[in-house]
Amino acid sequence: MLKFDEKKQLDSVSGALALRGKIESIVDTLCSRGYDGIYFMGIGGTYASSLQVVCHIKGQSSIPVYVENAAEYLTTGNRRISKNSIVIISSVTGSTSEMIEALEVVKATSATVLGFIDVPNSPLSTMVDYEVVYPGNEQLKFFMTADRFMFNNGEFDDYQKYYAEMEKYLPQALIDVEKSADDFGKQLAKKHKDDTMHYFVGAGNQYGATYSYAMCYWEEQHWIKTKSIHSAEFFHGMLEIIERDTAVTVFVGEDKERSLSERVAKFLPRICSNFNIIDTKDYELKGISPEFRGSISHLVMHAVTQRIDAHLENINCHPMEIRRYYRCLDY
Amino acid sequence: MLKFDEKKQLDSVSGALALRGKIESIVDTLCSRGYDGIYFMGIGGTYASSLQVVCHIKGQSSIPVYVENAAEYLTTGNRRISKNSIVIISSVTGSTSEMIEALEVVKATSATVLGFIDVPNSPLSTMVDYEVVYPGNEQLKFFMTADRFMFNNGEFDDYQKYYAEMEKYLPQALIDVEKSADDFGKQLAKKHKDDTMHYFVGAGNQYGATYSYAMCYWEEQHWIKTKSIHSAEFFHGMLEIIERDTAVTVFVGEDKERSLSERVAKFLPRICSNFNIIDTKDYELKGISPEFRGSISHLVMHAVTQRIDAHLENINCHPMEIRRYYRCLDY
Repeated sequence: MLKFDEKKQLDSVSGALALRGKIESIVDTLCSRGYDGIYFMGIGGTYASSLQVVCHIKGQSSIPVYVENAAEYLTTGNRRISKNSIVIISSVTGSTSEMIEALEVVKATSATVLGFIDVPNSPLSTMVDYEVVYPGNEQLKFFMTADRFMFNNGEFDDYQKYYAEMEKYLPQALIDVEKSADDFGKQLAKKHKDDTMHYFVGAGNQYGATYSYAMCYWEEQHWIKTKSIHSAEFFHGMLEIIERDTAVTVFVGEDKERSLSERVAKFLPRICSNFNIIDTKDYELKGISPEFRGSISHLVMHAVTQRIDAHLENINCHPMEIRRYYRCLDY
Repeated sequence: MLKFDEKKQLDSVSGALALRGKIESIVDTLCSRGYDGIYFMGIGGTYASSLQVVCHIKGQSSIPVYVENAAEYLTTGNRRISKNSIVIISSVTGSTSEMIEALEVVKATSATVLGFIDVPNSPLSTMVDYEVVYPGNEQLKFFMTADRFMFNNGEFDDYQKYYAEMEKYLPQALIDVEKSADDFGKQLAKKHKDDTMHYFVGAGNQYGATYSYAMCYWEEQHWIKTKSIHSAEFFHGMLEIIERDTAVTVFVGEDKERSLSERVAKFLPRICSNFNIIDTKDYELKGISPEFRGSISHLVMHAVTQRIDAHLENINCHPMEIRRYYRCLDY
């Protein structure tokens, strides 16, 4: 399989799950102190991950938890972020300019900052109160943090069972998804390699996935134009531009908003013949209990889209690491 | 001028501003009772207006105010909406199915609902605790409500001066914007009538404007494909697909996020020659104090885009009232 290092991916997910003790210790400390709100703050890809985790929490918890875009925080601001608030960030490079500037403002409020940073000793490292250094797996780190907050809030009784299953089965289950999605990924890449525009539609923890997959992968890394739209919003405008040949991919997950995407998937065949449905339900996830599948649907989807990416990069002879402008120009 | 009834538009805005006494009385009652949160709930265009008003409030207030998408509320839910919460909605038809279903759930929580409905005696009328019936001007109604909440919270000292100016000058100022934007609208419509895809970029109270203008106007009413993106997010992915001929329009407003859009406007000429900048600062707004312009930038932008719409409809021989699917098919 193209661009697929099974051992490395297994170790990566297992290693992320092994951060649990550290995450629990930090979250337990934060909970013992109390807080008036939790703000997942990001920009670009980390903003999308923030959308996902906040949707996850809202579905089962009454914790006051919000998404904050770092650049909006720097301009419009948010007066509710105070010394009693918790701000959670993630950064691959540890040097994103908006995040550094935003944390300067956050620090002035004396809010507590928990940072997941992929590399040690980054500029952001010096600005967070609690740091977890580990590469990749941003969404998993966010969800592990969220789950501990909910467990401590009495809203996740199956927490121990859930993580016992995840630790035992998730790394291999995601490997198996990639293997079984490889041919589908190749076919989708072949079919859409010349698209002038591609629509991605999703809901729940898949909405952030469509947002970041469209913008941070197809636009940024494959240089193909996209739009991402929430499945519920699809019916309030976007549907009118769909015709036989419009390229559309629907991400269908298994969380509480599944029905919103099923509605799009059911409607599309009447007006379009150039669509794809990626339904996480089609993948086995050996060892994972049915009631836990919704909370990892976004990871399953990511495993599928990794196969699309590997083939699209290859077919289009367009290495995903090249950028025309990002960090190449001053702006 | 095409599709322009000066008297009707003047009366429409003046009439909306004249709702102030009624809105103040409702908001004052709600404030005297106290509340734990205000939720602007919408879908499609009303979701976009909710984004705008919540951004407006966040910029100057510590009131706990949030956007809630009606369909997400129906699936993922929001356990924080309680009997002490205020839910604010708006509806043109008073019969949008997601809104009716969402209000049924809201009513079960005993939250208080304030509804702005364009027509009397609609299905939604029977479900709200406080109703204001008046056609159009959704954003103005939302902002008037927001401003009274902020005034009562001690966060809008200039409230009386602001509304005195609005009542005296805003209706004519918006008419003047339309008149001076008419030729620009015609040129933009001519230049982009055949676009296969058009990007709209904006921030602050213009982000909701780009979202709804792209989806509810160009996609739904002109049948032209679009993407809308927040100016801050533009630099985290989308910029990579911009080339010389990519069609991009940037909405630049005058609120706190202006700098985010100025950054896009400044960068674009280096990589693209098919862009448009619509800057509300280019319009006079006679009688409106400089410090108040930011709060009405979205109305100024709407006046400009109305001129684009009038010409695009005419040039493309595509009546804006026709729909292929919306309310034409069951889905």
